[in-house]
Amino acid sequence: MTTLPPGAIDAATAAADAAGAVIRPYFRAGLTADDKSDDSPVTLADRAAEQAIRAIMTARFPQFGVIGEEFGDQRQGRYNWVIDPIDGTREFITGRPTFVTLIALVEDGVPILGLIDQPVIGERWLAAEGRLDFTSRLGGRTGCRKRTALAEAELSCTGPEWFDASQLAAFHRLEAACRRASWGDDAYAAGLVALGEIDVIAEAGHKPWDWAASVPIVMAAGGAMCDWSGNPLRLDAVHDGTVLILGDPALRTAALIALRGEPC
Amino acid sequence: MTTLPPGAIDAATAAADAAGAVIRPYFRAGLTADDKSDDSPVTLADRAAEQAIRAIMTARFPQFGVIGEEFGDQRQGRYNWVIDPIDGTREFITGRPTFVTLIALVEDGVPILGLIDQPVIGERWLAAEGRLDFTSRLGGRTGCRKRTALAEAELSCTGPEWFDASQLAAFHRLEAACRRASWGDDAYAAGLVALGEIDVIAEAGHKPWDWAASVPIVMAAGGAMCDWSGNPLRLDAVHDGTVLILGDPALRTAALIALRGEPC
Repeated sequence: MTTLPPGAIDAATAAADAAGAVIRPYFRAGLTADDKSDDSPVTLADRAAEQAIRAIMTARFPQFGVIGEEFGDQRQGRYNWVIDPIDGTREFITGRPTFVTLIALVEDGVPILGLIDQPVIGERWLAAEGRLDFTSRLGGRTGCRKRTALAEAELSCTGPEWFDASQLAAFHRLEAACRRASWGDDAYAAGLVALGEIDVIAEAGHKPWDWAASVPIVMAAGGAMCDWSGNPLRLDAVHDGTVLILGDPALRTAALIALRGEPC
Repeated sequence: MTTLPPGAIDAATAAADAAGAVIRPYFRAGLTADDKSDDSPVTLADRAAEQAIRAIMTARFPQFGVIGEEFGDQRQGRYNWVIDPIDGTREFITGRPTFVTLIALVEDGVPILGLIDQPVIGERWLAAEGRLDFTSRLGGRTGCRKRTALAEAELSCTGPEWFDASQLAAFHRLEAACRRASWGDDAYAAGLVALGEIDVIAEAGHKPWDWAASVPIVMAAGGAMCDWSGNPLRLDAVHDGTVLILGDPALRTAALIALRGEPC
């Protein structure tokens, strides 16, 4: 039985507000990106936004751990905040308004609160205790879409360069089974699964801050998330970096079979 | 010497306004996409928006031809409107706010007016007579970015499924020469070249309505456009569907060499 700590939702929304205020002036402002050791870009905005989030979390919940993309893993105890100040830094540095700030609260390894925030358009997904709230001036309604066959499913993926050779082959099998693929947008696309706009997402090379916030959001919208072997995504388990998101859990078996290359 | 017909800018903006009014209610509204013969999706919104644009163009310029993605090629005379009511239908049907409406006016085969409109965020690029106007509540300034080496260039592409095997190999050579690749967003990404956010775009499988509006916009911002052999993009020339966009024309030779696979 999970227990949402009092004040956790307020802290997450305050932290997302603070991150957005930090990030907005940097958008389309000629920011230079550095390359990290894993070839992913990082900017001043990433670092400043993570510091803003950490300051709020540390002040309000000093007994909780914080795991962030830019300033490392300070996990402790039962509760840990898992944050990515700018998910989709490639979108951010190319002026696309589909990067997002990700904030999750994890209890005993399981994400129990998730927040996805798009600060330049103004869109926010917030899920806790099985309930999903979505606010956006662009419209959209919460709830995953029913799709019982992969042949009717819209597949999405951030980019093929995240796959190794065997993962690329697995992805191509899944792509061939789905209706269509579209590309880009990282966790923003997970938000679109929760709006019934995308049915399947397959990613690789993911770290906990890439997927933790999406888990409560996708689950509250009626979908499912696991790795490409069908294992649940937990902070306290070994994880190979693969992520599979399904708007309709009925697609789970067929998607896993396609990824494994077994005959249906 | 090109001559912009009086009233052409007013017609293009009125047509984009009309298309946006048609499209907005369909966004994230559970629209069903049909598959066309080339496997690209088309929706009720595509068709209704093209009809709205055509109605305005036909009423105001009955002597001009119209070439549109959904209702065919009725080219005539010296001036032709070339329109794509929803470029990035995959983005549109997956709820991404980066699809665009494209309107170009072509004179004797050469695009002389280009308009890119994003109707749900509210962003518009309009170029004619060498001048580019950009309006957006998200910010951004017009003008391509100087990048004299591919190693410093951000590359973008809508998706790898548009390439045949030899095009995919060519793209991979270009990708290896560039700093980083990002994916998705069709002509919206061309608009981002004109804001100095993206440096190189390589696409294949393009039809005139996919590239015509981008030509005046990219050129007015200081960039260059051609096919993968370096030929200019003209409506009256045979075209293999490849498109190369360069924010800095200084990158042109290196990009063409990378695509051809010749030693630098």
